[in-house]
Amino acid sequence: MTPMSEDVEIRMPSGTDDPLSDAEIQKYREEINRLDRVILDAVKKRSEISRAVGRTRMGSGGTRLVHNREVAIINQFRDELGDEGPGLASILLRLGRGRLG
Amino acid sequence: MTPMSEDVEIRMPSGTDDPLSDAEIQKYREEINRLDRVILDAVKKRSEISRAVGRTRMGSGGTRLVHNREVAIINQFRDELGDEGPGLASILLRLGRGRLG
Repeated sequence: MTPMSEDVEIRMPSGTDDPLSDAEIQKYREEINRLDRVILDAVKKRSEISRAVGRTRMGSGGTRLVHNREVAIINQFRDELGDEGPGLASILLRLGRGRLG
Repeated sequence: MTPMSEDVEIRMPSGTDDPLSDAEIQKYREEINRLDRVILDAVKKRSEISRAVGRTRMGSGGTRLVHNREVAIINQFRDELGDEGPGLASILLRLGRGRLG
């Protein structure tokens, strides 16, 4: 896994007189593919960890879910991503429940 | 941004006789928080790039969306994440359309 390449500068086209070139579009598409790889890997790792924690909590007599923590995560994603945030957070939380959810 | 710490080993508890300790749970929760940061940053960057590309494509007389590419992304997320994959991909695609969607 390579670190996030924070050095990719996105030139925002201002309109039809200033389009991105085909080469630029190709470069950005490759960057999107790379980011999708980062997202998928992080989502898988997150799910794996969350399932292990939930399994332990149940094993020690607790609940599988901790409601307050789930609400905090949903709120964080709303704050950072807007209206799509809660839906994304809900998917992550469901993935973290595994087969039990 | 730090690189993904691939060195976090998750010890999977086998059942009630082998629970994760509180310290382990705390460590894993911190790792989940770190992964959520990675996910949020990558999603924001992806959205920014996708919006720039869509703007250019429209500016040069093309369509804002490329249907085949969207289908390929949805299929990739299904292959890697299962049933929750398409929903997650759809959110990413909507975020990449920005205000225009």
